[in-house]
Amino acid sequence: MRTVDLIQRKRNGEELSPEEIRWLVESYTRGEIPDYQMSAFLMAVYFQNMTDHEVGAMVDAMIDSGERIDLSSVSGPKVDKHSTGGVGDKTSLIAGPLAAAAGVKVPMLSGRALGHTGGTLDKLESIPGFRTNLSIEEFREVLDKVGFAVIGQSEKVAPADGKLYALRDATATVESPALIAASIMSKKLAVGLDGLVLDVKVGAGAFMKRQVEARRLAQMMVTIARRKDLRAQALITDMNQPLGRAIGNALEIMEVSQTLLGAGPEDLTQISLELAARMIFLGRITETLDEARDLATRLLVERMGYMKFKEMIAAQGGNPQVLDRFELLPNAPYSYEIVSPRSGYVAAIDAEEIGRASAMLGAGRNTKEDTVDPAVGVFLEVKVGARVEEGNVLCRIHYTNSEGLQEAIDRIEDAFRISTSEPEPRDLILEVVG
Amino acid sequence: MRTVDLIQRKRNGEELSPEEIRWLVESYTRGEIPDYQMSAFLMAVYFQNMTDHEVGAMVDAMIDSGERIDLSSVSGPKVDKHSTGGVGDKTSLIAGPLAAAAGVKVPMLSGRALGHTGGTLDKLESIPGFRTNLSIEEFREVLDKVGFAVIGQSEKVAPADGKLYALRDATATVESPALIAASIMSKKLAVGLDGLVLDVKVGAGAFMKRQVEARRLAQMMVTIARRKDLRAQALITDMNQPLGRAIGNALEIMEVSQTLLGAGPEDLTQISLELAARMIFLGRITETLDEARDLATRLLVERMGYMKFKEMIAAQGGNPQVLDRFELLPNAPYSYEIVSPRSGYVAAIDAEEIGRASAMLGAGRNTKEDTVDPAVGVFLEVKVGARVEEGNVLCRIHYTNSEGLQEAIDRIEDAFRISTSEPEPRDLILEVVG
Repeated sequence: MRTVDLIQRKRNGEELSPEEIRWLVESYTRGEIPDYQMSAFLMAVYFQNMTDHEVGAMVDAMIDSGERIDLSSVSGPKVDKHSTGGVGDKTSLIAGPLAAAAGVKVPMLSGRALGHTGGTLDKLESIPGFRTNLSIEEFREVLDKVGFAVIGQSEKVAPADGKLYALRDATATVESPALIAASIMSKKLAVGLDGLVLDVKVGAGAFMKRQVEARRLAQMMVTIARRKDLRAQALITDMNQPLGRAIGNALEIMEVSQTLLGAGPEDLTQISLELAARMIFLGRITETLDEARDLATRLLVERMGYMKFKEMIAAQGGNPQVLDRFELLPNAPYSYEIVSPRSGYVAAIDAEEIGRASAMLGAGRNTKEDTVDPAVGVFLEVKVGARVEEGNVLCRIHYTNSEGLQEAIDRIEDAFRISTSEPEPRDLILEVVG
Repeated sequence: MRTVDLIQRKRNGEELSPEEIRWLVESYTRGEIPDYQMSAFLMAVYFQNMTDHEVGAMVDAMIDSGERIDLSSVSGPKVDKHSTGGVGDKTSLIAGPLAAAAGVKVPMLSGRALGHTGGTLDKLESIPGFRTNLSIEEFREVLDKVGFAVIGQSEKVAPADGKLYALRDATATVESPALIAASIMSKKLAVGLDGLVLDVKVGAGAFMKRQVEARRLAQMMVTIARRKDLRAQALITDMNQPLGRAIGNALEIMEVSQTLLGAGPEDLTQISLELAARMIFLGRITETLDEARDLATRLLVERMGYMKFKEMIAAQGGNPQVLDRFELLPNAPYSYEIVSPRSGYVAAIDAEEIGRASAMLGAGRNTKEDTVDPAVGVFLEVKVGARVEEGNVLCRIHYTNSEGLQEAIDRIEDAFRISTSEPEPRDLILEVVG
């Protein structure tokens, strides 16, 4: 087999055999195919896509490149939830505790902030003492005892994906549904799960800008899961404006707390409840999805998710009091108000611009090596559809030093669109796949 | 400027600025952009193409990466001829001498066989004693004295192209009109030329399979030349069956000799005369193209091209007697006849398959490091349109050892299509651009 022939055939739109895909992934992981051939292959995939068979073969080869995480010793149904990445997306920390409170075991292997999107690990690490680097044994213990545990992606799980992702990041080949699906599913399938709920974000703040692409990605992932007997469903949800009001690590933990107490923003509450309900349903805690929805809502009202999250924070070494006393969380010393230049309606809040501004203040990363400032971020005082008068505060910027502040202000001002007419309300949950 | 942003913009179909293209080429040549980013960029160009402005900027940057060959000390109009590569294409060695006999100075920087296509240097080197590694000073002397000289591509001319070509070859990004145009023109424009005749091959045996692609390539090259005040014309010519009857280095020298004596195959003679006429016309030896055609024909009939080629062989250290006494050329010890499996008409002779078979016998190269066997090759006893009876000889394979012989036989048998109906005659020269 010659690598250049496989690149050429993919470039010409042909389907490669499972053996050919496996050979490519394995040879690349072993260092026998150079980066420059793999990046050309990935760009050809960007343009020509891959079939379900090809993606399936890629997932299998990536799983086999590393270790699996065996959770058979943990009792109860194991259901994870994964988002393709958004701005202000803290649903994992709301849906996870609610599902766990219902009896589901929620083993989350999460990522870090990259580019304009946030990461669950960074958010949790803003809690003093919180450890995300549990051993697999500790992870199993927390999961068994509490029902909800979060650790970082191990480099031993699907190392082929880690190597490929770094290459894609440097070669503008991230935004391919086939490659995103293979990357996500190789890591999820390496963990012994019974169910998986996927939240595929679409819109200005997501990797997938168009619903047709998001649908294709969702279908690919659900198909891969089903071929492996993993129960899976995907929601396609709007990511045109940030989710909730808080963007930034400690700010988002505060909003999670408020939401688990029933006082959260409507959009965040709605999506989190739906995700929790699907986790409960796939975990077969209830017989129907409607029963699962009722259960999730009841657990929220009864603050059971809130208690579960506190329990989990304590189990992973953090101080659970932060959920009641926000002054125990890192707070930025300075804030800056962005006001509306005129009266009208908030017609749009560009999530990607807000995400980039927040990253620029220190909440995110440009490269994997950057460190994160847990205190900084943006808090939206209004959401799309709100009526504002000239001079009303649109949002507050929380910052630690003035480096990058002016550019962040400019970006955030550009992100808001104020119009004279009231915008049409948009659906939050656009579609369900699977 | 970040490389990944430029890759992404090209991937998205945007036009890059001349400064951005120059920065990419220069940074890559200096080793500051890694191969894996450049190969992703090249694959994005394969799918999204480049505008004339982008190609022009790429050519400028590639020329500036190396030395120029100054021919101002050579008197007379300097006109080169370049083919995009075909099977059995020995027109350079016929049109070159004819144009030189008319008073044009023909400075050829030629390439070697690669893949299924042949190379002028390899053909000339089958002549005992012939030197293609002249110094630039010697090259100028032969050109001044004889009017026709051929040397290899210097690595000092457009080194950026050399580095890019090697990467394209390994990453299935050769077949892009924009990249082919930039590669060819950067080398041609580094030489002080007054005119350039391009022979863009199209069909089964060419890099460009479809006429629309060939036209786009021809237009790009002519546009680049004109922007640099270089007179240029391009012929688009058929490369579905091999050109002439001989494929293989020494075999092709024999056919060149016969053609320059007026006894060559019709297709080869016709294209060579037209190319010579255009060289003469662009060199402003005649006022009209028709006069140039008459002159080229007269020079052929009077064997002036034949004498000129002999003179050039001698000037470059070779034995000119080979043109009369073919036994002085390398001759393969064995031959094998392919016969027609049935009676009918020769409907097609797949040039790429014949080229690959010939390369397999040793006439070509799979990698640049391979050496070439000058004696081996294929000689066609029939061309498309010929009437054959079952058992008639279709072609003869000339080989030195039996390694690869059976596969070559299989390929050649597959290359011939014998049909019951007489095929429509095809035009040889399909289009003129410029």
